[in-house]
Amino acid sequence: MRKQKGITVWFTGLSGAGKTTVAKEIEKQLKARKIYVQRLDGDIVRKDLTRDLGFTAEDRNENIRRNTFVAKLLTQNDIITLCSFISPYQKARDYARQQIERAGGSFIEVFVNAPLAVCEERDVKGLYQQAREGKIENFTGISDPYEEPENPDLELKTDVESIEESSEKVIRYLEDEGYIDKKEGEAIEGFKARFSGPEPV
Amino acid sequence: MRKQKGITVWFTGLSGAGKTTVAKEIEKQLKARKIYVQRLDGDIVRKDLTRDLGFTAEDRNENIRRNTFVAKLLTQNDIITLCSFISPYQKARDYARQQIERAGGSFIEVFVNAPLAVCEERDVKGLYQQAREGKIENFTGISDPYEEPENPDLELKTDVESIEESSEKVIRYLEDEGYIDKKEGEAIEGFKARFSGPEPV
Repeated sequence: MRKQKGITVWFTGLSGAGKTTVAKEIEKQLKARKIYVQRLDGDIVRKDLTRDLGFTAEDRNENIRRNTFVAKLLTQNDIITLCSFISPYQKARDYARQQIERAGGSFIEVFVNAPLAVCEERDVKGLYQQAREGKIENFTGISDPYEEPENPDLELKTDVESIEESSEKVIRYLEDEGYIDKKEGEAIEGFKARFSGPEPV
Repeated sequence: MRKQKGITVWFTGLSGAGKTTVAKEIEKQLKARKIYVQRLDGDIVRKDLTRDLGFTAEDRNENIRRNTFVAKLLTQNDIITLCSFISPYQKARDYARQQIERAGGSFIEVFVNAPLAVCEERDVKGLYQQAREGKIENFTGISDPYEEPENPDLELKTDVESIEESSEKVIRYLEDEGYIDKKEGEAIEGFKARFSGPEPV
């Protein structure tokens, strides 16, 4: 069996908060360490898994339902699964956690927290402007609510942290909780630190 | 990384041909060998992934599309993925193969071949009777076509083979093609056979 333990890392936050950016950075670093990691987000799943869904509350829930199922299977097979979905409703995020934990998998909720003003200023995809102009309906933060996580396992403040700092928080969590091994270099450094007496001849 | 290589094993055949029965036996044997294996079939995915779908040609295609996507992700992460779907259209099965192979994954089409009369005689779920009585529409083999695989990678004749024999064919394929290691006992026997000279003292 693999030397890694499955977990779903669920990134929630406003559009533009940096969910996918951070997930991609983590993916890159873990892949370089030959760790099995799978990202899921709207861009990845829209074509095949959720092409019939829009942004009504009902469709959002169905979106979470299908992605939770996929994340559950991956997690059960010991893959580090990085889910980036706005997922504005606490109830939906709790559903994801329950489904995965009931199946014996691990789940953490990561609040990617950047103020609305910052996300709107970034407006990477030009969506906030369209939402303000009324061209997009049901837009989270503008015309639809975002329920902040009540008790997130991790919080990433992407308006003040760098991408690397935010990613490091998550990777450190995965290492500390034993989901992945510590980086080889660090493990060796730790070993040296523990055995710092004179070198054996 | 794991000592196993991902592949989607796609079982196609009539309702009652034994797709899921064989897949479950393979799953049991591989799990006993600590190999990562994930089954997908209608019963597993209906509640979460395909609850909105019926049995029209369009819905069947959408069913294949979503399951192919999931199988692709699992296969990319080196999981042995056992898909049991009637999947009556060659075009849909070719789609599954293309999607997975294009993503760098492996795929084999396994024709679970039992004559219609045998499947109807078994009628495990009582569906054939309902189809004959016109209570179920679009029933493959009765009121909907089943396109036999033109060139299957494996064929299981479940009307004359035992479940164990059919399963063994698939497991042997996975071993011979290097997707999984040979069973420990067998590997040792093979080793002994090669080094059958006098024991070293």
